[in-house]
Amino acid sequence: MYDLVIRGGTLVTRAEAFQADIAVQGERIAAVGQRLAGRQTFDAGGLLVLPGAVDPHVHLAMDAGVTTTSDDWTTGTIAAACGGTTTVIDFIEPDLDGPLLPALAARRAEAEAGAVIDFGLHMTLRSAAPNVLADVPAAYAAGCASFKTYLTYDGFRLDDAAFLQALTAVARVGGLALVHAENHAAIEALRADALAQGHTAPKYHASTRPVSTEAEAVERAIMLAGIAGARLYVVHVSTGPGAEAVARARARGQAVVGETCPQYLLLTDAELDRPGFDGARFVCSPPLRPADNPPLLWRQLACDALSTVGTDHCAFFFESQKSLGRDAFTAIPNGLPGIEARLALLYTFGVRAGRLSLQRWVDVCCVAPARTFGLYPRKGSLMPGADADLVLFDPNRAVTLDRSVLHERTDYTPYAGMAVQGYPVATVSRGDVIVRDGVFQGTQGRGRFIARPI
Amino acid sequence: MYDLVIRGGTLVTRAEAFQADIAVQGERIAAVGQRLAGRQTFDAGGLLVLPGAVDPHVHLAMDAGVTTTSDDWTTGTIAAACGGTTTVIDFIEPDLDGPLLPALAARRAEAEAGAVIDFGLHMTLRSAAPNVLADVPAAYAAGCASFKTYLTYDGFRLDDAAFLQALTAVARVGGLALVHAENHAAIEALRADALAQGHTAPKYHASTRPVSTEAEAVERAIMLAGIAGARLYVVHVSTGPGAEAVARARARGQAVVGETCPQYLLLTDAELDRPGFDGARFVCSPPLRPADNPPLLWRQLACDALSTVGTDHCAFFFESQKSLGRDAFTAIPNGLPGIEARLALLYTFGVRAGRLSLQRWVDVCCVAPARTFGLYPRKGSLMPGADADLVLFDPNRAVTLDRSVLHERTDYTPYAGMAVQGYPVATVSRGDVIVRDGVFQGTQGRGRFIARPI
Amino acid sequence: MYDLVIRGGTLVTRAEAFQADIAVQGERIAAVGQRLAGRQTFDAGGLLVLPGAVDPHVHLAMDAGVTTTSDDWTTGTIAAACGGTTTVIDFIEPDLDGPLLPALAARRAEAEAGAVIDFGLHMTLRSAAPNVLADVPAAYAAGCASFKTYLTYDGFRLDDAAFLQALTAVARVGGLALVHAENHAAIEALRADALAQGHTAPKYHASTRPVSTEAEAVERAIMLAGIAGARLYVVHVSTGPGAEAVARARARGQAVVGETCPQYLLLTDAELDRPGFDGARFVCSPPLRPADNPPLLWRQLACDALSTVGTDHCAFFFESQKSLGRDAFTAIPNGLPGIEARLALLYTFGVRAGRLSLQRWVDVCCVAPARTFGLYPRKGSLMPGADADLVLFDPNRAVTLDRSVLHERTDYTPYAGMAVQGYPVATVSRGDVIVRDGVFQGTQGRGRFIARPI
Amino acid sequence: MYDLVIRGGTLVTRAEAFQADIAVQGERIAAVGQRLAGRQTFDAGGLLVLPGAVDPHVHLAMDAGVTTTSDDWTTGTIAAACGGTTTVIDFIEPDLDGPLLPALAARRAEAEAGAVIDFGLHMTLRSAAPNVLADVPAAYAAGCASFKTYLTYDGFRLDDAAFLQALTAVARVGGLALVHAENHAAIEALRADALAQGHTAPKYHASTRPVSTEAEAVERAIMLAGIAGARLYVVHVSTGPGAEAVARARARGQAVVGETCPQYLLLTDAELDRPGFDGARFVCSPPLRPADNPPLLWRQLACDALSTVGTDHCAFFFESQKSLGRDAFTAIPNGLPGIEARLALLYTFGVRAGRLSLQRWVDVCCVAPARTFGLYPRKGSLMPGADADLVLFDPNRAVTLDRSVLHERTDYTPYAGMAVQGYPVATVSRGDVIVRDGVFQGTQGRGRFIARPI
Repeated sequence: MYDLVIRGGTLVTRAEAFQADIAVQGERIAAVGQRLAGRQTFDAGGLLVLPGAVDPHVHLAMDAGVTTTSDDWTTGTIAAACGGTTTVIDFIEPDLDGPLLPALAARRAEAEAGAVIDFGLHMTLRSAAPNVLADVPAAYAAGCASFKTYLTYDGFRLDDAAFLQALTAVARVGGLALVHAENHAAIEALRADALAQGHTAPKYHASTRPVSTEAEAVERAIMLAGIAGARLYVVHVSTGPGAEAVARARARGQAVVGETCPQYLLLTDAELDRPGFDGARFVCSPPLRPADNPPLLWRQLACDALSTVGTDHCAFFFESQKSLGRDAFTAIPNGLPGIEARLALLYTFGVRAGRLSLQRWVDVCCVAPARTFGLYPRKGSLMPGADADLVLFDPNRAVTLDRSVLHERTDYTPYAGMAVQGYPVATVSRGDVIVRDGVFQGTQGRGRFIARPI
Repeated sequence: MYDLVIRGGTLVTRAEAFQADIAVQGERIAAVGQRLAGRQTFDAGGLLVLPGAVDPHVHLAMDAGVTTTSDDWTTGTIAAACGGTTTVIDFIEPDLDGPLLPALAARRAEAEAGAVIDFGLHMTLRSAAPNVLADVPAAYAAGCASFKTYLTYDGFRLDDAAFLQALTAVARVGGLALVHAENHAAIEALRADALAQGHTAPKYHASTRPVSTEAEAVERAIMLAGIAGARLYVVHVSTGPGAEAVARARARGQAVVGETCPQYLLLTDAELDRPGFDGARFVCSPPLRPADNPPLLWRQLACDALSTVGTDHCAFFFESQKSLGRDAFTAIPNGLPGIEARLALLYTFGVRAGRLSLQRWVDVCCVAPARTFGLYPRKGSLMPGADADLVLFDPNRAVTLDRSVLHERTDYTPYAGMAVQGYPVATVSRGDVIVRDGVFQGTQGRGRFIARPI
Repeated sequence: MYDLVIRGGTLVTRAEAFQADIAVQGERIAAVGQRLAGRQTFDAGGLLVLPGAVDPHVHLAMDAGVTTTSDDWTTGTIAAACGGTTTVIDFIEPDLDGPLLPALAARRAEAEAGAVIDFGLHMTLRSAAPNVLADVPAAYAAGCASFKTYLTYDGFRLDDAAFLQALTAVARVGGLALVHAENHAAIEALRADALAQGHTAPKYHASTRPVSTEAEAVERAIMLAGIAGARLYVVHVSTGPGAEAVARARARGQAVVGETCPQYLLLTDAELDRPGFDGARFVCSPPLRPADNPPLLWRQLACDALSTVGTDHCAFFFESQKSLGRDAFTAIPNGLPGIEARLALLYTFGVRAGRLSLQRWVDVCCVAPARTFGLYPRKGSLMPGADADLVLFDPNRAVTLDRSVLHERTDYTPYAGMAVQGYPVATVSRGDVIVRDGVFQGTQGRGRFIARPI
Repeated sequence: MYDLVIRGGTLVTRAEAFQADIAVQGERIAAVGQRLAGRQTFDAGGLLVLPGAVDPHVHLAMDAGVTTTSDDWTTGTIAAACGGTTTVIDFIEPDLDGPLLPALAARRAEAEAGAVIDFGLHMTLRSAAPNVLADVPAAYAAGCASFKTYLTYDGFRLDDAAFLQALTAVARVGGLALVHAENHAAIEALRADALAQGHTAPKYHASTRPVSTEAEAVERAIMLAGIAGARLYVVHVSTGPGAEAVARARARGQAVVGETCPQYLLLTDAELDRPGFDGARFVCSPPLRPADNPPLLWRQLACDALSTVGTDHCAFFFESQKSLGRDAFTAIPNGLPGIEARLALLYTFGVRAGRLSLQRWVDVCCVAPARTFGLYPRKGSLMPGADADLVLFDPNRAVTLDRSVLHERTDYTPYAGMAVQGYPVATVSRGDVIVRDGVFQGTQGRGRFIARPI
């Protein structure tokens, strides 16, 4: 007699879809079988039962210089949970050249106080200062096995030499390097040119970060990772040529993984050219791309040239925050909200549209992020022994996306008006049913830090 | 209390590897869980537990014109079972322009009488005669959902027009077309040239079927399948360029699957140049390839440009059968034995050599063949409801391949002398433990025909 | 004191553009220099002086089954001369399986009686019958060093085996094989389908010959030419993927040359969808292609993936000939007029549009066709010793293309309404000024057969 | 009656090869024709007559920090002339952040005092300091239209931002940017690693500059040139992947030209592993590459993926200069001698070996360098009006390369022992026969600076 049995659903893994009961004992999955008996049962007839989704790329309560992202650990993780996500991985951003461990402790404490679901933390390497890199083994040992690097953004970007040192340090401990790959110099020059010509509207955010600046930086990052012997994860690949570079490296056998995001699959740079300042709602980096790009990304996602879908959730209020850039696109805070709708968007425009199989959908949203970042097999699995993180997903539930149905703390969604068919109806986190029919019923601070070896 | 519980093994699926018990009830898997109880238990501590391997490409008791392949349904399936294979798919070869259904009935009866494991049958389309294609829906309905075509071999080959008609007929019923893709005209001309120059030794078998003749035929088959709207399975892809053509089609989103075989991954055309007539042991079509080719195939297999590994098991005795070609390579019966060692070879030279993950190994040998050919989820799965076809594989067992350890009915193995580390120690077929420690303990004729919708 | 000196023009070769006088003595160029003196002088100040253009692909007085192309040797070569072309290469089409030499003699006599400029003849191999291939050396010896083959069209097409035999026969004499590369079976099937669905309008001519049918056939022809050791010339490459196949072969070092035509560079399949039957004016094979294709061909022409521009001039009257296909596109005579405007079109849309350099223009229209087909150095050169075939081209002359300015014998031009800037103002053939300001002043039958070793 | 007529040779241009006389009047070519008459005649029967070769990449009397390259303007240009080169382009290396014009004046004066053949000068941009870039228009106006940049070497290398500024400045004046493309950070790290491990032998020079470091830098340079709108010339492309990047850009229509050098076509990194310190003779950057590389470069040179062959002549004495690096490969002066043998090497291993046509040989050694760098039509042409810079080349003269036959001032040649067939027998510079049968008979200081617009 198990604690909880979810009966009669279709269990979907990255490999299979089969009808079975799934039994939970305490916080863990205890069995998958037929006619299992539990003290409590949940009828999942007609529903899909997935491993809880893992979002490997979110920015909650992030200091963005002049402002802070609008979702904090509580509001953001509630939105995530309502969308079927049971684990997020956010970032630690230490002081420039500052020690890593205190920053980890502080960020972890902040998250533990607020999070309603489990979480991991990537460590950001803002420089390759010797004291910084000396902390890498300790950060790894403390459960931060993935290290974020930037090739652009002042105060964050590493030049090739520093990037190579960082990669080497990460490789030495067996960690995984994340890279935001855009060519800094080209973008800076194009931005300066645009401003000099009085081109201040939001659309210039896209035109000053052309496709080639991502493709080049991805190629370079891959080459340097090869030299360092480091495994590389390229975040938010937004272009066909960028993904192609990842695919070529993978075909050569190099350990490179590419992530894309719903916004690059579903939206285009035409949004940035909306009347007035409205395009600012769609300012993120890398930018939304021309209309010939999303079909390439869908195909690359289907055939594992790209392996994961993260959200890069980085929410701002349009009225009070995006508006900081009314005078010039360069001052618009970069980022889009999106933590909540990922599973539903990918189901509707991926699975229903025939671009992804059911299994591939579960893989890119749930399993591959868990495996890539060392959460697996605790997360990303429906097999006995795994954490009982589950989503019950109704493939026929129709929802029109809008502020009113989402829980993200911001005043808009870039997906407003999109009709999805298929939506989560319950979310289970370590055995607790924390969301039911769109109502969060968990408690603040219940989320735990997951230490990750990779 | 289940009928049988296999305890404490590491279950490996195409997606995961986790420690759990697996319970069998009757012929089916009933549960995967922890501390499951059974009337009978099997201690799998230290072993890998896989879904039974599926060999999608074998030729048992095949009429090869002047001779017949040496393994019949009983000897061949015993060898398969001893190697961890629990399902094979063989071929029906009707008379030229003859009706399909009687041929199916006869072949099925022959197999049911002999087979010790379950089996499926591909229907061969030797022509596109109207009466032949008119039988396609009935063959599909009778459980033969996959249709083999040849672009070479007199008496079998279809020209482009016939091939396109066949593809169209298969597409219409929703079936899957298999194709042996080599350019007939080029090979015929090169063979005639070779003989005219007195080049009769086995090595000319390889030189008269150059890499370009496969690559061209694969490109053409893919184009025609695209025109017909047919799903295509390219058997025994033996060359990097052939696999590259498959990969390009897949990246465009076309429904094309490529198979390769252990012999193309592990052996080269240097074998054909052995002293005297010894090279005849290695004569198969497509031929073994130059030494720069296997590394390409391994990489293409790892990244799913190639998706399955079949054996194309087509055994002949060297002394009494291969020797028919002593006067000219063109008379050497084409084919290699290999039904038994596939799992072990791919584990040793794939997983242990770092070329394939454990999951990818299970995928290419067990899961992908089952899924591709409509056996799934009965076969290829460890999940509740699936047939209890299982392999217990000892990853540390060392074996030197040799006639003495194999059960194939022939007088040689092309893998003689190869040392593998990792070998099956028990095979379960629909709940019966039919092989234990290399000893077959099942009964002739217990294998069942599996009707396959695709 | 030379017979004729053309003074002060800008001489353009495939390599250079320089100001110099050019002197003619008899039928030949005698010198290139400064301040040369002649009995007769022609002031070419402000004009470009080119080697006479060579059109390697025309069909004059061709029996097209139910009808005959409308331009005969006199009208067609006058139109060519007026457009700056001083040599054409047409085709001999022997009876099926008939002897080659009598057909050559007859075709040559017909041409000698009518042609106003020099000409060569390609020999068509309509089958690989032994007696046909036995004539190949004699045809070569008689000056027909290039042999046309077709992979489609009943009565002309060679299957792979026959094509390979033909290639081998051509390779043995050191000749050049031309190939019309489209996949016959796919096109036949699509045409039959279209008719069965009542799709009879001109636009179905394009949709039943999709891009992939050319690309496949080009790949196959290249592979078979590689096997045969034959040099290959792919006529009228109309697609980016077809040209890409040529480019890959060239990059590997294989002797393959690709030709394209003005219609594929300048027109699209949208023309075929004109109201009513008007699209029939644009029916040719391969068909005009989608709008994304011409930019690819321009780039491939610029970088020598494609090397020559022929016209495939194959004129019919719209009213009396194209109209044969009013009931079904399959009955529309295939072919477009175009012998006259090639130089002007390529100058305007190539050189002026920045897609081709001046030298590349001369190369693709004049030099490369001469070199490829063994006319060089008699034709295609401005150097001493070459035939005095010259075009004086005014780069600033503006002309709107229309029936009224062209000399082709037909009732329409597919380029009607196109404005070109740059047009020939005089044409010199073996020292005779045969066209001046658009007026032909030569004599019928003055053209000579040019025997071509290659 | 011309001043000089060279009679009866085979004139070879990038486009043609034809027998004709060529007449010189004063310093210029006056006519090409038959039976031309001159006060002086030179019988060229059996010889090839080429435009004088142009070497776009030499380093004479170059300050290499601890030492100076061993050939000065007199010895180096005599060696060049003896090898058939009539124009060299060397470099100006201003002080870091120093003014460009004084450096140009000084370098020009030094060259004018010593050179025996004409010369051009590339301006090196060692930084993008505002005062430096402000001098670019004046340098261009003074005849230095090509600007060298380095992505590696301390004191020379530009980071991406500086490189982009330099490219932009060059693009603005319509100049051409040269780039030495190797990834600095990767190489520095690998060198430091090697030294740390005690790997000091010459062979580590190659292993610390792997193929990927060139390929990456070429990709990046092309991307940044595209952003800046600058034409780009990639010097000394040494790898297949590097050349492939150039080819892809050219196929897209970007203005990129690639140069390779005889050492990369003919030698491999095996030379660096010679016993003792002998490998130091072969230390240059980029380094000699693995044996699979030269065949790729030959093919890329044949099909114009690579367009020019320069020598990067940078001579040192082995005994007194290369020996500075006995303790560590990092201290070996980088560079190989090679100014003299280029034409003969490319003829023997290119034309005779069937890898290049006669015309392509002339193109890559003589014409393309002239055209690319604005010397044309004064240089690189045999047409009237061009400078009378000519090479008479005996295609049958056999020479074994060795110090004794070469005029370079150094104590070794990397081509020692190579047998060439085909050698220059006379060199004409602006009408003067300055070399005859290997004996220089010109005068020091006769060479002139050629101002080059591009």
